[in-house]
Amino acid sequence: MSEFKKVNRSENYSEWYNYIVDAAELAQHSAVKGCMVIKPYGYAIWEKMQADLDKRFKATGHSNAYFPLFIPKSLFEAEEKNAEGFAKECAVVTHYRLKADPDNKGKLIVDPEAKLTEELVVRPTSEAIIWNTYRGWIQSYRDLPILINQWANVVRWEMRTRLFLRTAEFLWQEGHTAHATKDEAIAETTQMLKVYASFAEDIMAMPVIQGIKTANERFAGADETFCIEAMMQDGKALQAGTSHFLGQNFAKAFDVKFTGKDGKQDYVWATSWGVSTRLMGALIMTHSDDEGLVLPPKLAPIQVVIVPIFRSEEDFLAIQEKANNIKSELEAKGVSVKFDGRDTLKPGFKFAEWELKGVPVRLALGMRDIQNNTIEIARRDTKEKTSTSMDTVVDDVMTLLTDIQNNLYQRALDFRTAKTKVVNSKEEFLKVMDEGGFAMAHWDGSSESEEKIKEEYKATIRCIPLNNPQESGTCFFTGNTSKERVVFARAY
Amino acid sequence: MSEFKKVNRSENYSEWYNYIVDAAELAQHSAVKGCMVIKPYGYAIWEKMQADLDKRFKATGHSNAYFPLFIPKSLFEAEEKNAEGFAKECAVVTHYRLKADPDNKGKLIVDPEAKLTEELVVRPTSEAIIWNTYRGWIQSYRDLPILINQWANVVRWEMRTRLFLRTAEFLWQEGHTAHATKDEAIAETTQMLKVYASFAEDIMAMPVIQGIKTANERFAGADETFCIEAMMQDGKALQAGTSHFLGQNFAKAFDVKFTGKDGKQDYVWATSWGVSTRLMGALIMTHSDDEGLVLPPKLAPIQVVIVPIFRSEEDFLAIQEKANNIKSELEAKGVSVKFDGRDTLKPGFKFAEWELKGVPVRLALGMRDIQNNTIEIARRDTKEKTSTSMDTVVDDVMTLLTDIQNNLYQRALDFRTAKTKVVNSKEEFLKVMDEGGFAMAHWDGSSESEEKIKEEYKATIRCIPLNNPQESGTCFFTGNTSKERVVFARAY
Repeated sequence: MSEFKKVNRSENYSEWYNYIVDAAELAQHSAVKGCMVIKPYGYAIWEKMQADLDKRFKATGHSNAYFPLFIPKSLFEAEEKNAEGFAKECAVVTHYRLKADPDNKGKLIVDPEAKLTEELVVRPTSEAIIWNTYRGWIQSYRDLPILINQWANVVRWEMRTRLFLRTAEFLWQEGHTAHATKDEAIAETTQMLKVYASFAEDIMAMPVIQGIKTANERFAGADETFCIEAMMQDGKALQAGTSHFLGQNFAKAFDVKFTGKDGKQDYVWATSWGVSTRLMGALIMTHSDDEGLVLPPKLAPIQVVIVPIFRSEEDFLAIQEKANNIKSELEAKGVSVKFDGRDTLKPGFKFAEWELKGVPVRLALGMRDIQNNTIEIARRDTKEKTSTSMDTVVDDVMTLLTDIQNNLYQRALDFRTAKTKVVNSKEEFLKVMDEGGFAMAHWDGSSESEEKIKEEYKATIRCIPLNNPQESGTCFFTGNTSKERVVFARAY
Repeated sequence: MSEFKKVNRSENYSEWYNYIVDAAELAQHSAVKGCMVIKPYGYAIWEKMQADLDKRFKATGHSNAYFPLFIPKSLFEAEEKNAEGFAKECAVVTHYRLKADPDNKGKLIVDPEAKLTEELVVRPTSEAIIWNTYRGWIQSYRDLPILINQWANVVRWEMRTRLFLRTAEFLWQEGHTAHATKDEAIAETTQMLKVYASFAEDIMAMPVIQGIKTANERFAGADETFCIEAMMQDGKALQAGTSHFLGQNFAKAFDVKFTGKDGKQDYVWATSWGVSTRLMGALIMTHSDDEGLVLPPKLAPIQVVIVPIFRSEEDFLAIQEKANNIKSELEAKGVSVKFDGRDTLKPGFKFAEWELKGVPVRLALGMRDIQNNTIEIARRDTKEKTSTSMDTVVDDVMTLLTDIQNNLYQRALDFRTAKTKVVNSKEEFLKVMDEGGFAMAHWDGSSESEEKIKEEYKATIRCIPLNNPQESGTCFFTGNTSKERVVFARAY
């Protein structure tokens, strides 16, 4: 089935990842360089993420809206830092028509007469088009705050792509809010960071560090970038979401002013925040194992699969009836259940397939079970199997789903704890980077040393954690004084 | 508020439409020619449409997936008729980078060195990229059917645009299915037509005619196009959804074959089907009136608004308490309710605003009501007001919501019935076209006369209704023999 051969994590983590994405039918490369096809099973997981996030956005007062895919070049370049940050990876529309190729029957060429007078950038992010629109919406403090989110596709031209982790086109949501005061905008920024953190931890079962990016790692056009950082199983970091305090940068670039209660005019304060299909990559690399995908129950499109063990048609029908009863009872409790009644495949094959696809709980039911009023329960995370009574199976499954969700989180947290080291020298630092993990190291706060560290160790400052303990020390790299440790890691 | 002045339908239907879209805060033009901004209130209606449609697609066995925004030109041109049909309206990406303009500080230019070796078409529809992908998914009949839907944005360069009705970029869903037999593909095509029809009628309260397009009006690349056609209040037709039987055209263009149960190879059979944000335009033009938007309860983001009538803060608090009780009871029944407690606006202003926004039911509550244990109920569709007892108000609202939904449908159906005429001569035909309405006229079945009619009367054959009664007659235009009447109209 898979174009990639089965690989264990310990052999080659990167090839293992490609294998899982392919074999679990999550996504594949397309005919368009750098763009992916998200397959139905992968998309079903993304839909579950979307639904939960969307609920959280609405619960915090946001509405969805939709802004154009294209940004005229003159708008795109208005906020200079933002433009500079994204210019190198912009897909640009220059023409609006194809025509028949006179030299090649049946082929088309770009019609040179249909050249746009102004080129259009395919949005890499939507601050420019949105703030240009907000100008028309905001006159007074009464028009504020504006709390809008957009679910959309964006394009950032990438040369080296990896499915979900780095693709030229990806799906995301981008929140764009406008406020009358700086404090309110900062409160929004941190509120959304917390929304992301609790989504990551409660739904994805993925522990994250909440923190602030250094100036070097900030979003182009932001005054401050907050982030959540997760640790993958190879000890590398993955930035899983960002929330930006944009100050008045976009309001100034697009001339968005409001009249305050005091009658004075001021520029509007802004935030933006986003997570993307990159979260799919984070999910896979946080929990999955050599047998395939492992999904937290809250994101599993199929939470329970029931596999019948039968020899005759008669047995099959008896088992199916029992299975359907269990299925109905579980569905009534909001659990999604699949009965795998395919008659051309052996149970062992089915077990492996559902393991590969990360279904959290597997029930197996044979004639002997029916005679004994028992059923086999297997959990995907630990691969433990037990036999339970048919009378309690529904409750047992409900408990197990919660257990699995919690266990996945705890396992990932324990892993991160074990792989996070306090580091005081270059040698210790290099060791952590080479073995994989987070190094908590003193840093002198200068962009210069940050860049040199990046060059020498291929490691970046992932963030300065929120509420970071203040302790005086010396920078592991320069020996200069430092007031706190920050999180270093190699990163996706 | 609105950049458009208030206009009545009878004065200028087209300006009235623009006014409603703007004043009800549904959408607006953007800085990008032909692309719209869908504002939060408009988007909330679209989200309700999406949620209902998505449920119907899943109930009929479809899964969502996502395919790239871009289509390499060589793939785009593979299915010649499809390519020819869309070539004239394609946005084309030719470059993947901007760079600083050496002559203009702070400005950007397209980097000539970042020219793509093959141009990318921004998808106007996704058959090409999807069938190119399906080739890798299909070997045997066991891989069929493939039942996939995609929610996405598409771009068709339009010179004359109108918000929702015709925009360069729009949002839609596109189903793309693959089947082992012709019959199965045709059954899928008509199944999805029926899904669209029942969505239009049951949810949008918009009666539609289900039918087949003539060869001239077919989707480029289809063997047969089925459609639902609705009548707007000016008597013009609006194509509200299409479902295409694509035969083996795309399978042949992209070489997608499968091995059947009999071991023989054959090309795969295809369908595609879609509805778009155009439905928003249809919704507006089916129900709304000179006071503003009218929404069927099933699509109203706010179904009930409660406006307090008060003079003192003390009164306000007493009213608010009562209102919140009603709100909670309604919400428990799944009704979305807004309590409009703004203290800077008069009730009359609020009434007008919620009328403009199409909220189906308005409750008004003052101190006298509280003394009398009554409450005023107003319905948006007929603008009738009554006073009811506070004890029955929740039940009354529930009944009223159903009544409004049904009434809107019936009113639209009655209107269509009245404006649909059996026509036997050119004079009668012209009269119907000029007054607005559907003409049921005999047509000789030739593309030639169809084109001449279009030229002379600016009218098209909207469809040949399903289960159309067969009766011999003479074509109103050519006098040639005809076997059935078809639906003619001027159309959006």
